[in-house]
Amino acid sequence: MTRIAILGATGYTALELLKILARHPHVEVTALTTRQDSKPHISEIHPALTGQFDLVCENLSAEEVGQRADIVFCALPHTASMEAVPQLLDAGCRVIDLSADYRLSDPGVYEKWYGHVHTDPTRLSSTVYGLPELFMDRIPSAELVANPGCYTSTSILGLAPLLAAGLIESSGIIIDAKSGVSGAGRTPKLGTLFSECNESVTAYGIGTHRHTPEIEQVLTDICGSDVQVAFNPHLIPMDRGILCSMYPRLKQQKSVEELLNVYREFYRGQPFVRIVENIPATKHVAHTNFCDISVRLNRDQLVVFSATDNLIKGASGVAVQNMNLLMGLDQRTGMLAC
Amino acid sequence: MTRIAILGATGYTALELLKILARHPHVEVTALTTRQDSKPHISEIHPALTGQFDLVCENLSAEEVGQRADIVFCALPHTASMEAVPQLLDAGCRVIDLSADYRLSDPGVYEKWYGHVHTDPTRLSSTVYGLPELFMDRIPSAELVANPGCYTSTSILGLAPLLAAGLIESSGIIIDAKSGVSGAGRTPKLGTLFSECNESVTAYGIGTHRHTPEIEQVLTDICGSDVQVAFNPHLIPMDRGILCSMYPRLKQQKSVEELLNVYREFYRGQPFVRIVENIPATKHVAHTNFCDISVRLNRDQLVVFSATDNLIKGASGVAVQNMNLLMGLDQRTGMLAC
Amino acid sequence: MTRIAILGATGYTALELLKILARHPHVEVTALTTRQDSKPHISEIHPALTGQFDLVCENLSAEEVGQRADIVFCALPHTASMEAVPQLLDAGCRVIDLSADYRLSDPGVYEKWYGHVHTDPTRLSSTVYGLPELFMDRIPSAELVANPGCYTSTSILGLAPLLAAGLIESSGIIIDAKSGVSGAGRTPKLGTLFSECNESVTAYGIGTHRHTPEIEQVLTDICGSDVQVAFNPHLIPMDRGILCSMYPRLKQQKSVEELLNVYREFYRGQPFVRIVENIPATKHVAHTNFCDISVRLNRDQLVVFSATDNLIKGASGVAVQNMNLLMGLDQRTGMLAC
Amino acid sequence: MTRIAILGATGYTALELLKILARHPHVEVTALTTRQDSKPHISEIHPALTGQFDLVCENLSAEEVGQRADIVFCALPHTASMEAVPQLLDAGCRVIDLSADYRLSDPGVYEKWYGHVHTDPTRLSSTVYGLPELFMDRIPSAELVANPGCYTSTSILGLAPLLAAGLIESSGIIIDAKSGVSGAGRTPKLGTLFSECNESVTAYGIGTHRHTPEIEQVLTDICGSDVQVAFNPHLIPMDRGILCSMYPRLKQQKSVEELLNVYREFYRGQPFVRIVENIPATKHVAHTNFCDISVRLNRDQLVVFSATDNLIKGASGVAVQNMNLLMGLDQRTGMLAC
Repeated sequence: MTRIAILGATGYTALELLKILARHPHVEVTALTTRQDSKPHISEIHPALTGQFDLVCENLSAEEVGQRADIVFCALPHTASMEAVPQLLDAGCRVIDLSADYRLSDPGVYEKWYGHVHTDPTRLSSTVYGLPELFMDRIPSAELVANPGCYTSTSILGLAPLLAAGLIESSGIIIDAKSGVSGAGRTPKLGTLFSECNESVTAYGIGTHRHTPEIEQVLTDICGSDVQVAFNPHLIPMDRGILCSMYPRLKQQKSVEELLNVYREFYRGQPFVRIVENIPATKHVAHTNFCDISVRLNRDQLVVFSATDNLIKGASGVAVQNMNLLMGLDQRTGMLAC
Repeated sequence: MTRIAILGATGYTALELLKILARHPHVEVTALTTRQDSKPHISEIHPALTGQFDLVCENLSAEEVGQRADIVFCALPHTASMEAVPQLLDAGCRVIDLSADYRLSDPGVYEKWYGHVHTDPTRLSSTVYGLPELFMDRIPSAELVANPGCYTSTSILGLAPLLAAGLIESSGIIIDAKSGVSGAGRTPKLGTLFSECNESVTAYGIGTHRHTPEIEQVLTDICGSDVQVAFNPHLIPMDRGILCSMYPRLKQQKSVEELLNVYREFYRGQPFVRIVENIPATKHVAHTNFCDISVRLNRDQLVVFSATDNLIKGASGVAVQNMNLLMGLDQRTGMLAC
Repeated sequence: MTRIAILGATGYTALELLKILARHPHVEVTALTTRQDSKPHISEIHPALTGQFDLVCENLSAEEVGQRADIVFCALPHTASMEAVPQLLDAGCRVIDLSADYRLSDPGVYEKWYGHVHTDPTRLSSTVYGLPELFMDRIPSAELVANPGCYTSTSILGLAPLLAAGLIESSGIIIDAKSGVSGAGRTPKLGTLFSECNESVTAYGIGTHRHTPEIEQVLTDICGSDVQVAFNPHLIPMDRGILCSMYPRLKQQKSVEELLNVYREFYRGQPFVRIVENIPATKHVAHTNFCDISVRLNRDQLVVFSATDNLIKGASGVAVQNMNLLMGLDQRTGMLAC
Repeated sequence: MTRIAILGATGYTALELLKILARHPHVEVTALTTRQDSKPHISEIHPALTGQFDLVCENLSAEEVGQRADIVFCALPHTASMEAVPQLLDAGCRVIDLSADYRLSDPGVYEKWYGHVHTDPTRLSSTVYGLPELFMDRIPSAELVANPGCYTSTSILGLAPLLAAGLIESSGIIIDAKSGVSGAGRTPKLGTLFSECNESVTAYGIGTHRHTPEIEQVLTDICGSDVQVAFNPHLIPMDRGILCSMYPRLKQQKSVEELLNVYREFYRGQPFVRIVENIPATKHVAHTNFCDISVRLNRDQLVVFSATDNLIKGASGVAVQNMNLLMGLDQRTGMLAC
């Protein structure tokens, strides 16, 4: 059994990770951390896990984690992650970092969008971006995997095939994204109170959302020329799920069927991307690691729909895909029959 | 007291109309109709109205309605409305039609989008489109007012000032609209069951939604040249509210403040349109007749946000605005202090 | 116009008060307070109020409030209220206190349930409990009205007629209450985050909820002998609304119709209590000041259902009823046609 | 691989069954039925299953089902089930019936509550009631298992230990049950529309809900003397989950800890019942086969809380437990690590 630690066990991504790992046949969770010193049992933090793990959350050093675990999921806030990751790697662990700290390869871009100088800049260019559908070949041998953001994966998976095929303009791509509230995390804030979010929809972070440079970096990598998106996130009253409605400009007219075939070809053999004929609904992917994609033509305007569960395919599910690849396993292990 | 009838009293628009009219100082509701012959009391149909109206819903002819009412709200399904309206007008009533039957001025366009030959085509060109913020001068003297669709009003109010001022391209305007479920009506259907809609977001009617030609017709009227939109409605898990996120192309760069001033000037003196600095949220307009509008620049891409309560400003509230204008009253009567 | 101040303008009860007062014909809001010193405009705090009030929230002393207002709604947290209220009364204001500080007539009971010594104990016995359906005669001349709790009003209105008539046992009354989340206030807490409450139902405060002694005190007052309830509140995923399902023991068997007649007689002439034949649903009273009540027999077990909007009839609506009575107006003013 | 058929594949219980069976290591789904003749692919009916099953839903006879399957889940409406089950048994299948048709052992009780004469009455007394925590020894050898109702299991699991131990009175047990909307099924009805259920809570079926006799029959069986409950179901705005708040009368006072120990002893070794110290919340059991139980004392009044996912532990999850037992497997197979 591979020994697993999770740093930052109190949030929703840790909860979903643990739900998946509870059924995984080849791993054992051996350490959970929190900054609290009271050593709460994990089932006090997450009552849903009662009876599934007999573990307390401890305030452990990187060295202590390194003695207990082979692979570490780092679910810390940004800036906390760039402090912990080098120590974990030094301690001999392989790390899947769920924060944003290692996703952007250019420390200047990081500083611009996150407002902090990166303290581990030299590692950025060599970190593997953990979107297995695009970077499957680089992940298995990685020491450090930067797990993608939720909006990011959903957007990229929906746009990559068309950009790779040169079918759409690389600039001016409008992304209208709708997310459930769990994406905002578990720290109490006015804006994520039930009575503020329920029975309401609004947008936020227009022009400033930090997933923007991440989407552009990865798509530019795929496309070969500069990709520029207008990313517009919205908050809607549901727990989980992201639907990205994306409006790129086709270079030349194509039929829906031709476009769907581009996607089918691109994702051939990928178990977690489903090219569907219906318009994707987040309910159909909720609590799964699937990303459902389809396209429509609204007269001449192409619309690409991409739907995920923001906590699974957008965070903890893809993290387990990455873990499986690090372990040399089928990426479906613990999530789908394989 | 002006005598009021509502045809089709069992739906949500009738319910919201009655809630508003219950507090209106100058009208008395005298007739409610339904196709059922069992004469249900209105509080059996809408328990929320218990104690507010002592009226039964009757299967009345147009002539009978004409004897009882001065102004009739026709909340029938499309095609049923075009049958009833001519009879109501013949019976001497003034009519506010909440269906789509008299909104499109070209019977050919109606037939194309609704799949029915219009049986009262000659009246279309003379019907007044009941969006008071744009057509205030035509409404007071009208015999028949076509009350706008919910997506329609929300979209038009957000785009009209920029088109009228020639600031945006008139084609290729992307509208990404998010609506609560009540917009789909009260007839039981699989797609509007709680367990289908809740915890889900999806799109529908891409390229085929019938509010498209209505938006284009009115905006073309305002703009003077052909307006073409890509209208993309989405269903989100809430009772009521519409947020339209709209992506027009600016002809030349403007600041957010310059653009907001265009809106403020355009809607000066309009009590129900609020140009706000925050991004509108449907919660802030829910259960009111307000339309909140703001703009943002996402780098160079203009984003216009417009929010309404689909049942109030999108249907029954604007209908009462129209009724007030027909009666020569301040349009706020019964809805805001005036 | 009577001049009105609201202390503690940032919460949900203040928001709902302001929505009602915006349409009230005989009052003018002249002061809003907050502990913040930044003087935020009320529409920054509550965007829903944009365009309705041109007021900033100020950190005012009781004396300053007294100079600006005739009647003060005190929407402060408990303990803060008992500090402010004496000063407001000294400054010549009449006060409607929405906190719990003046609801319990026995300072020892207050201390036991709230964990604080009451600093204004002598005023407790003379404070009027502001439930107009029960204490209509005492309110008009009051200087200080203790506005009831939300669970409290809903429970009391459902039980008072049967206790007053001696039809049920006064002890062992089980109250199973279900509340929307807004009842928990607007201060960010883990337990009221959207992602914690949504798609979940649970109970809390079993045996310790502070509305227990308030319910018992008022019902004991009505009944003439000690009333004892087992109050069991539950949190359900909706914004607003309380449904109390109550299980008292009938002293002797009665029919549903006989029981409903007891209620009808008890509440004759009361515009805001509706005795209904259907089982009350919170949706039917949402955004209104109504309390809907009905009863059922489950074989021999009596079930009383009582439903309110926790923010209106449970807080701000009843506060306006009280204000109307202080002003010598019809209690419906500003809320129902009258 | 054991061959599995599901009769009535279009509902929510079939959907959840298929989600579980997709990951089950020892079964293969070989037939799905519907009364439609159009042979829809299962992913058209349930898009969530796309890519997981390549099966069409067919209008098959019992004989045809018998040729294709070893074990049949019968997810038909009541009365349809009692027609199909005898044929399926004759065809050599073992059957897990998810309808109510075989749950009541007395055909007279069935007729009274369901309003139909039972057409297969002789089989009733020999049918095994499929609640494994209580009837583990009878299930493995059964030909026909009556899968329990959702409210039923949740209530019974919460009350059985105390009744078996003689700690509570067997009559006058009040059950206040709160259920998500999916329990009402997937057939479009006014009462389960999103816009009717959302932002509302109400009760229904007081004194008439058909799970009443089922609860009483099983508990009477456990208790040895007649059990009588007042069952009061409520509908709350969430997809899934049941919380039963139950108010039995203790025969003599016990502490919470003593009572929890009675439960822990009763359910020792049962993997799907968790005796928890926190008050159960439906969120903590959603999408799992767990039943979480705890107790509180509200002064002298005992309160028992029991929470399940109505579609899993309340229907499809317990059905898989039963299937596992029929197959001689660990009952956790396909649901928990074992």
